[in-house]
Amino acid sequence: VLATTPSERLSYLDRRGAPELREALAAYLNRVRGTAATADRIVITNGFAQALRLLTELVRARGGRRIGVEDPGQRDAVRAARDSGLDVAAIPVDEHGIQIEPLLRADPDAVILTPAHQFPTGAVLAADRRAALVDWARGRGRLIVEDDYDAEYRYDREPIGAIQGLAPDHVAYAGSASKTLAPGLRVGWLILPDAYVDEVAAFKETVDRGSPSLEQLALADFLAHGDFDRHLRRMRPIYRARRDALLRSIRHHLPDAEPVGASAGLHVLAWLPDWVDDAAVVARVRREGVAAEHVSQYYGPDLEGGSARARSGLLFGYGTVAERAIDEGVRLIAAAI
Amino acid sequence: VLATTPSERLSYLDRRGAPELREALAAYLNRVRGTAATADRIVITNGFAQALRLLTELVRARGGRRIGVEDPGQRDAVRAARDSGLDVAAIPVDEHGIQIEPLLRADPDAVILTPAHQFPTGAVLAADRRAALVDWARGRGRLIVEDDYDAEYRYDREPIGAIQGLAPDHVAYAGSASKTLAPGLRVGWLILPDAYVDEVAAFKETVDRGSPSLEQLALADFLAHGDFDRHLRRMRPIYRARRDALLRSIRHHLPDAEPVGASAGLHVLAWLPDWVDDAAVVARVRREGVAAEHVSQYYGPDLEGGSARARSGLLFGYGTVAERAIDEGVRLIAAAI
Repeated sequence: VLATTPSERLSYLDRRGAPELREALAAYLNRVRGTAATADRIVITNGFAQALRLLTELVRARGGRRIGVEDPGQRDAVRAARDSGLDVAAIPVDEHGIQIEPLLRADPDAVILTPAHQFPTGAVLAADRRAALVDWARGRGRLIVEDDYDAEYRYDREPIGAIQGLAPDHVAYAGSASKTLAPGLRVGWLILPDAYVDEVAAFKETVDRGSPSLEQLALADFLAHGDFDRHLRRMRPIYRARRDALLRSIRHHLPDAEPVGASAGLHVLAWLPDWVDDAAVVARVRREGVAAEHVSQYYGPDLEGGSARARSGLLFGYGTVAERAIDEGVRLIAAAI
Repeated sequence: VLATTPSERLSYLDRRGAPELREALAAYLNRVRGTAATADRIVITNGFAQALRLLTELVRARGGRRIGVEDPGQRDAVRAARDSGLDVAAIPVDEHGIQIEPLLRADPDAVILTPAHQFPTGAVLAADRRAALVDWARGRGRLIVEDDYDAEYRYDREPIGAIQGLAPDHVAYAGSASKTLAPGLRVGWLILPDAYVDEVAAFKETVDRGSPSLEQLALADFLAHGDFDRHLRRMRPIYRARRDALLRSIRHHLPDAEPVGASAGLHVLAWLPDWVDDAAVVARVRREGVAAEHVSQYYGPDLEGGSARARSGLLFGYGTVAERAIDEGVRLIAAAI
């Protein structure tokens, strides 16, 4: 791209992003994630963080007051919603993903969720819940924000398709290159319901007049020539081997821990007995260079309907850890506990 | 940078931006623009647009209600202020830059201005006004937002230094690579008063978790090795020749027009007789492939204190126009008038 891009492509782009990238993403996501995308319904963002913020601004601008988030769930969603002046309702998650009854009771203007691989529990949203979720959004005119953050990495079968493909007029689908390539690229994307595209593109223009050109054009090229597919095919067995090694080490060193979630993504959650202070364990092993996370930080006792009491557990990320370092890390964690 | 950057630098960066770039910018701006910058007071943004929005959010978060803008002036400032929920007061500009009496009367919480080369009039802010501006900001605890958008290009003498260097605790200095390198890089920067750095960095983190790494590291390298200085030295005579050709063509084809402003930047404003509808002229020549802008769009009759009546005039940009195309463009404009 550096060698071939004419300099006028380094001027301001279409505020939705480079057309080449929007075309390439629509083709890729429709094929691999089962979305119903067209290039003109895609807006390129600076990673998922900006995509999320544009959506919370949209909900607010349309008169919305409340957003539902998964509990436990990604706290970025809580911050973005609050920064946009929205209240946040916590919707509990179990081993089949977000629970529908509490969602219907809370009935927020929009809900942000991770159906392909719930963060942090790793649950895959059950088929009947997907259907119920879409019924709710259609029937009440609510917005589903689908955070498809690591769906490219499923190790035991084909990943479940995106909800966006079932209800493109009721779902804002968000993805990024942060988990598959690198966070420092800051490339994310939204597939939007027709009715929201212009408004979100206008927000994007006011906040920063569009994302940088080079990363967009390079990623478009990478997608269009099949390099992205090849990269994923190359990485899947590597991550799977790390995941298997991690699960073996957990069984060996932490027999009381209970690993959960689908064989997917770049992290494993293992529940711990409730007497273990997960935050204290993390603080201790961090001093020894081990970077686990405590799951209790992802609960929302401060949110409407949030769990009063967080479960204890540890998140083990293996996206950047060599296989041979995994066992030693888990051993140190066991010692700390 | 692509060849040598270790992959961990493509993870999330310091939310203020890459340390290398902040170091290189502080050294460059202190030397060339007379700023008083240190790397830890710099925040990297996605171009000036985002820098501006972060500042209007800051003013709002600190309880501010009103921002002053130049009239005529850049309308982006008006949009950013309104998007942040602020009222906007228009402060008139004359051939010595922003006028101080109306600023003192309006006394907004902050004022956004282009002292080195006022946009669109090309005026350089007079020395006594610079002093009065700083006195006002110091005395009342107001914030000066200094938009130093094209100060690298001064053709007849050394450019006047940045106001930030006179009052670093009262000025937020904003610059970008859009005029010197390319808008599509989306690299901008803020030098902030100590008291505001953490707050602006936190805003930056919530809105997009930081700017992309590669452009930052490449620009840091470009600055640190003197390539940026060489680029400017190479471009100045090219732009100056275009500017001279443009002024000759204006004198020749548009004898009633009155070009104004310092010998600087990438555009010339020429006032037109008031009977000329500048917007109509622009619309007409655009169909013939000539991209002038009408100055009347930069007035704020909708703003508190804004000029009720805009002057007629045309802005001729020469940043991307070959010297030989200039005369034909001006000839077509004269014919349209």
